[in-house]
Amino acid sequence: MNFASPRWVMSQLHGDVWVLRIGHRLVRDERITTHVGLVARAFGARGIFVVGLEEGVKRKLDDVTERWGGPFRVEVMDEWRPVMRKWKEKGIVVHLTMYGLHMDDVMGEIRGLGKELLIVVGGEKVPKEVFDLADYNVAIGNQPHSEVSALAVFLDRYFMRRQLRKSFHGARIAVEPRRGGKRLLILKEQ
Amino acid sequence: MNFASPRWVMSQLHGDVWVLRIGHRLVRDERITTHVGLVARAFGARGIFVVGLEEGVKRKLDDVTERWGGPFRVEVMDEWRPVMRKWKEKGIVVHLTMYGLHMDDVMGEIRGLGKELLIVVGGEKVPKEVFDLADYNVAIGNQPHSEVSALAVFLDRYFMRRQLRKSFHGARIAVEPRRGGKRLLILKEQ
Repeated sequence: MNFASPRWVMSQLHGDVWVLRIGHRLVRDERITTHVGLVARAFGARGIFVVGLEEGVKRKLDDVTERWGGPFRVEVMDEWRPVMRKWKEKGIVVHLTMYGLHMDDVMGEIRGLGKELLIVVGGEKVPKEVFDLADYNVAIGNQPHSEVSALAVFLDRYFMRRQLRKSFHGARIAVEPRRGGKRLLILKEQ
Repeated sequence: MNFASPRWVMSQLHGDVWVLRIGHRLVRDERITTHVGLVARAFGARGIFVVGLEEGVKRKLDDVTERWGGPFRVEVMDEWRPVMRKWKEKGIVVHLTMYGLHMDDVMGEIRGLGKELLIVVGGEKVPKEVFDLADYNVAIGNQPHSEVSALAVFLDRYFMRRQLRKSFHGARIAVEPRRGGKRLLILKEQ
């Protein structure tokens, strides 16, 4: 998608939560970004915007969605600023950072707004502008950990644990939960 | 530490939760393992066993503990089997896997045992033996996501959210939570 058409972004915002992953420049971040994307999908987000050279990440995430079900979209963007700015016209932007206010102190307020939510997930070096553009800077505790865990715990609270029981559509495979070993269910043939 | 002295392991188990990270063989996993370790520390575990060539990971995690406080220990092991086996003599072993029973269905039972807890966190290819040795195979939902998020959400449930308010001892720096921007408190000079 070409961000020359930002209307597309707005067209996606119908009661859904999206994630924006910024700060990725180095190849070594690809696995972390993939994990962020998998968490976004598994924990109930509708899609993720990834910035920069992330075609490998998109392929991997799209492949998971094709096998395990959706809906879940991955959009590779050139810039993060327009995504944040456009989102703020209609919804709110929450930036996850260890420097922010404790999640448990603001979650009720955020949920109560009932607005389209964009969750911004950075890496170690996030530009100050991200802090300024965000409506909320939210900390999942004020200790260093990981953008992967921060996103997971935020979504877990936001969706009040229900996302882990979410059913996915169009899945070809699914897990049958077991005490031991692995069992995969083949839901439809390729 | 030499695992010829497994008594050391047992000596550590006084009401504490530890994490065992297995499945790391490739350099590209180092960042994921580091994130797993940071989550273990920030979410209340007492330490982590990492298996294999993880000296870089240990340095990074020890550095975080030195600056942000502890207690938190990182032990580099040659083998994961003896860690699991010794632990089972006294405590219980929970293996986090998307193939396991849903966390919310077994958490009460696990917490109720009141035993020393070892949480095993694998990667994509975990040997069947790990499933067999574990007392519980537990899924943080049955969708693919990440060992980083799985560990965070499990510990968040296990400690009933209290871990995010935990105070760390001997810290040189700490965050002052803010609505915007960053503020670090220098607690003691180097």
